[in-house]
Amino acid sequence: MKAALIQQKYHGSKEATIKKTLELIDKSQGAELVILQELHQGPYFCQSEDTRYFDLAKDFELDIDFWRKISKERQIVLVTSLFEQRAPGLYHNTAVVFDKGTIAGKYRKMHIPDDPGFYEKFYFTPGDLGFEPIDTSVGRLGVLVCWDQWFPEAARIMALRGAQILIYPTAIGWFDEDSDEEKTRQLDAWITIQRSHAIANGLPLLSVNRVGFEKDESGCLNGIRFWGNSFACGPQGEFLVRLGSDEERAIIVDIDMERTKEVRDIWPFFRDRRVEAYECLLKRYCD
Amino acid sequence: MKAALIQQKYHGSKEATIKKTLELIDKSQGAELVILQELHQGPYFCQSEDTRYFDLAKDFELDIDFWRKISKERQIVLVTSLFEQRAPGLYHNTAVVFDKGTIAGKYRKMHIPDDPGFYEKFYFTPGDLGFEPIDTSVGRLGVLVCWDQWFPEAARIMALRGAQILIYPTAIGWFDEDSDEEKTRQLDAWITIQRSHAIANGLPLLSVNRVGFEKDESGCLNGIRFWGNSFACGPQGEFLVRLGSDEERAIIVDIDMERTKEVRDIWPFFRDRRVEAYECLLKRYCD
Repeated sequence: MKAALIQQKYHGSKEATIKKTLELIDKSQGAELVILQELHQGPYFCQSEDTRYFDLAKDFELDIDFWRKISKERQIVLVTSLFEQRAPGLYHNTAVVFDKGTIAGKYRKMHIPDDPGFYEKFYFTPGDLGFEPIDTSVGRLGVLVCWDQWFPEAARIMALRGAQILIYPTAIGWFDEDSDEEKTRQLDAWITIQRSHAIANGLPLLSVNRVGFEKDESGCLNGIRFWGNSFACGPQGEFLVRLGSDEERAIIVDIDMERTKEVRDIWPFFRDRRVEAYECLLKRYCD
Repeated sequence: MKAALIQQKYHGSKEATIKKTLELIDKSQGAELVILQELHQGPYFCQSEDTRYFDLAKDFELDIDFWRKISKERQIVLVTSLFEQRAPGLYHNTAVVFDKGTIAGKYRKMHIPDDPGFYEKFYFTPGDLGFEPIDTSVGRLGVLVCWDQWFPEAARIMALRGAQILIYPTAIGWFDEDSDEEKTRQLDAWITIQRSHAIANGLPLLSVNRVGFEKDESGCLNGIRFWGNSFACGPQGEFLVRLGSDEERAIIVDIDMERTKEVRDIWPFFRDRRVEAYECLLKRYCD
């Protein structure tokens, strides 16, 4: 199965950004599955808390229609990441998956971060659709979003529900003020935790992150330098492709969907889980 | 906190192997915590299924007394990995932790593997003590054993129960018949999944593996080349030390036990877990 990872910048407006996205999709001919990064239509607006950014969610239905048509024209399965207005005052960070002109399903980001420069709890209501894989013509997709990638629970549940591949649209980057050592640790941790989900669950994994520097428009912080490094790995966590930290680029990767069975047959972790001893996982803390 | 990782070979007999262990402990002066590898008193006997190996478990109480005395003499916290005869026909793979002459606690390996050359389900009854950290004078230790390392659930529960460090005595290696690519993938996966537990839980982690080639005495398979690579990493998964794949050696590492709070305060994963949506984790499979 051929998949394309589209790693790009924000180009100053929704129109210019989408134009670039379409250009990169067109460069990905042959890909049956195309993954876009988190909130790919616009800036990463969560750097400050400002009610005017809720306007970016109002065209959710139009956005869906637009990307549905793109998936039909290109005859692809397309993973998008949109800002959803569900009702006034009720918004989600929502991945919508299209399959050659139909809506295959959607996933509302379950784990919502909130730390300086990433004020997502202001914008996004935590998802209420659970961790449900989405069936498409290229397989059953375990689509998760950004902060979810730090939670082994999310990947595990997708796998236990039959996902055949894990997919993470994301938006993560560095603060220029941090030391080089801290930057290295953060990037390396981000790569490592995601590869570990592939390993623990015997699944291939695709992660697509944005690039470019985006200023904090509120002036409180300087801004975020999104670190790219979009990558794909196989079910032993082995790298298949990995992009750089500032290139704007589409890359196609060939995923062998049969390898999961081979790997799980020699590393049968699902056989040996001690489910009767895991109750503590349903608690906030076990003190 | 200074910890020593003792990576060694099997020396042909229990006596010779323990002599080498003590020599390496003596070379670790200054370490407050000493970690031995899985089943460090003998060979990795699980390469074949043979009832005579159950005899190796009969001196469990004497073994405990021996290592308790060592921990007292050296004034150390000592993590051992012993073959426990609990009753005739009932055996466990048990980590016993000593604290300067007292038994601090024990952990019976919960996840038991079984694949060619690693026939552990024949020998070890799955642990029935759960995932309980062990309190010692150097901190609350989340001791897990070998195969446990592939299960994010085990590390998470230890962390939710207040473990301050994750510790894995282990015995894993290559088959010479495997390709170099497969060997690289396996070693890399083993390192990656363990680093991911440090990252997901914001905890330092110590992993101690054996080295050396051990023949399959049954003659069915050739044997296992244990790959060493014992390592320590910090709460962002960053390497602190890492040993080679064939050196027999003790290495001391300085663990900053205060870094967990710093790292968790910027990456507050425990705050954001969606515990109400995790029920599927308690099932074998969610079909």
